[in-house]
Amino acid sequence: MPVFLSTDDSDFEARFAALLAAKREDSVDVDDIVAGIIADVRTRGDAAVLELTKRFDRLALTAEAMRFSAAEIEAECAKVSPEDRAALELAAERIRAYHARQRPEDAMWEEPTGARLGWRWTPVTAAGLYVPGGLASYPSSVLMNAIPAQVAGVERLVICCPTPDGVVNPLVLLAAKISGVTEVYRIGGAQAIAALAYGTDTIAPVDKITGPGNAFVAAAKRRVFGRVGIDMIAGPSEILVIADRDNNPDWIALDLLSQAEHDESAQSILVTDDAGFGQAVVQAVEKRLETLERRAIAAPSWRDNGAVIVVRDLAEAARISNRVAPEHLELCVADPEGLSQQITHAGAIFLGQYTPEAIGDYIGGPNHVLPTARSARFSSGLSVLDFMKRTTLAQMTPAALRAIGPAAVRLATSESLQAHGLSVQARLDRLND
Amino acid sequence: MPVFLSTDDSDFEARFAALLAAKREDSVDVDDIVAGIIADVRTRGDAAVLELTKRFDRLALTAEAMRFSAAEIEAECAKVSPEDRAALELAAERIRAYHARQRPEDAMWEEPTGARLGWRWTPVTAAGLYVPGGLASYPSSVLMNAIPAQVAGVERLVICCPTPDGVVNPLVLLAAKISGVTEVYRIGGAQAIAALAYGTDTIAPVDKITGPGNAFVAAAKRRVFGRVGIDMIAGPSEILVIADRDNNPDWIALDLLSQAEHDESAQSILVTDDAGFGQAVVQAVEKRLETLERRAIAAPSWRDNGAVIVVRDLAEAARISNRVAPEHLELCVADPEGLSQQITHAGAIFLGQYTPEAIGDYIGGPNHVLPTARSARFSSGLSVLDFMKRTTLAQMTPAALRAIGPAAVRLATSESLQAHGLSVQARLDRLND
Repeated sequence: MPVFLSTDDSDFEARFAALLAAKREDSVDVDDIVAGIIADVRTRGDAAVLELTKRFDRLALTAEAMRFSAAEIEAECAKVSPEDRAALELAAERIRAYHARQRPEDAMWEEPTGARLGWRWTPVTAAGLYVPGGLASYPSSVLMNAIPAQVAGVERLVICCPTPDGVVNPLVLLAAKISGVTEVYRIGGAQAIAALAYGTDTIAPVDKITGPGNAFVAAAKRRVFGRVGIDMIAGPSEILVIADRDNNPDWIALDLLSQAEHDESAQSILVTDDAGFGQAVVQAVEKRLETLERRAIAAPSWRDNGAVIVVRDLAEAARISNRVAPEHLELCVADPEGLSQQITHAGAIFLGQYTPEAIGDYIGGPNHVLPTARSARFSSGLSVLDFMKRTTLAQMTPAALRAIGPAAVRLATSESLQAHGLSVQARLDRLND
Repeated sequence: MPVFLSTDDSDFEARFAALLAAKREDSVDVDDIVAGIIADVRTRGDAAVLELTKRFDRLALTAEAMRFSAAEIEAECAKVSPEDRAALELAAERIRAYHARQRPEDAMWEEPTGARLGWRWTPVTAAGLYVPGGLASYPSSVLMNAIPAQVAGVERLVICCPTPDGVVNPLVLLAAKISGVTEVYRIGGAQAIAALAYGTDTIAPVDKITGPGNAFVAAAKRRVFGRVGIDMIAGPSEILVIADRDNNPDWIALDLLSQAEHDESAQSILVTDDAGFGQAVVQAVEKRLETLERRAIAAPSWRDNGAVIVVRDLAEAARISNRVAPEHLELCVADPEGLSQQITHAGAIFLGQYTPEAIGDYIGGPNHVLPTARSARFSSGLSVLDFMKRTTLAQMTPAALRAIGPAAVRLATSESLQAHGLSVQARLDRLND
């Protein structure tokens, strides 16, 4: 049974704080191993990658065979059913349409002094997308990472997806193709991250690496951060559902389970203003768990990390949610739009009872790569901006320099940076001649 | 003497590659020490911070005395000359005006199915700004970090600035006051970063930490990343100047020296299409170095890391610059705007000969916290967006769910995530009843 709290309980604050502080992630420390792998790939390049792929993925490759050929990609894509293909294409189209609206605007304006100021956005030149192999090899994640990069205008997009024992997921290759990615390598783990960051004879280095991965991949991304850009380090998935009594308990139960089935470390929280509805959802979850295919994962997740929190009113529900800062937030209430105005921290909000979170995972349009582990307090889901950067622009005229230059000279002097001051003063001296 | 290269040299590519690959930063490995400090502050809170401050800053404090009182801040601010105060205020006003234009727009739109999609931006609740003590205690950096946070709408802004041996820089406190920051602690180093990230009895934790610092501060920021958001890990400063012959060699020399005087690891590069002009700049640098106050820093920086690169034409200059991806780029050419269109990677561009980089450090308006060490390939200078995050919004209607729900069910099934599919299917079943 998950914890069942009420904000009326005298020990609520302590128990809620414990829930917030609970560290769900099993933090295997692989940092030393990963440091060794990165050093090895930097030194020996392809040879190291091939050896490590043989060791970890039980797959003997040559440098030439690391990359899927165009024919191999075509052959794999042909295995996908027309129905799956159509679903992927619809998802891609919707994700592309949503992200196209995120393209940022350049700006340039002139001040009364004649000075011109502004900024300009440009895409990253090359981006690498990591796609896990095996069970967690999700074609939807390929779309969610590759399409924003493509919309941003990234010239070169590379995918690394390990194929343990040689097993390939045709849907991943089809998702890559639909996203316009033709450079796909069957390598994974820390060795793939190292190859993307530093390059090998076969794999040219990239500027930015995104995508989920296991502990080795996460540690490697953290280590190469600075050499290349990375997206967030994702933790276990989580959902918080705010629901009043006018909901179908079974729908809410399925929404909670759709996070719980990801991972034993995932967390599902229901916040409701009706204790009886909370009990009904708990029963509905138990009922669904009897037959759910992934109950061996979902049951311990719900039991160990799940929670039902009964609140006095929906305003309190919003405050509770803001302290959790959930990755996914469903507002299954009469006025979801109104309640959403009270939400200050959440990765994604799903409004109303006809918007199960799974819609956002696949087909809604917004990105499903979202901040976990309370990091919605300070970070956002993946977007087009993650594949672009902004260059600021400034152009002084003689009049502008005369107007503001003296203040720069004074501040430079106060910071004992004489050359800074002289670089302005020398120009002012000429202008004042 | 700095290296003097020409793209006509037969060994140019190798020498330029070496210049790009040169690791200028002296990477003292303090990671183990920093891990210990963070663990100590997490365990013992204030007591650890006070002990470490006594050890590293030779300053005995009590928990109460860690924070500057309002009276202390007033007393320190009163020491600042009216001229310095006016300069700081002008800078703050211009920085605020520039950054106010960066405030992002919310969006919400309706699709033909009736589905509504969009996003909403919200500020981080609390941000901590690190300000180095001693020589590198720059009031301009206080403005450049605090004002974007303030413009973003951050409720609580905290500054940590160590005062080794009790020495306070009144300009830093005045800059804090001008930026609206009243919570200022006289602590520094990894212990300050740990206190900001995890909180102590005296210092409530923040959600985001920005600001430059030494190797200890950088290592601590890297370690708390994930628990809180951080800005970039800044490396030594750098400038690249593209200048044609129609420039005053002394002005260009001073611009190069204004980076070189920051740090022996700083880098200044001149790219010119006129070898004679390049030689004239080298001579002007030598002449200025004879009398420059910080010549003990600037001379070795220029000698060891400086470079003059002679190119065939300005298009080649742009290509060279893009490979460097400089933090600061000056375009001292007849058509700087036109040349800037060829620039794909740079932190900030200064257009024309009346825009020395120092204007951008203090008073231009754009931020001076910019990506170093070639990271302009994938990252941007500090901005209002660094203190905000985006929540995506989605609301399906019954008609929308009927239109796109089946594709979500199919994709969930293809990923073996049954509960995801059921959460959509259960709703579709009801709608189709």
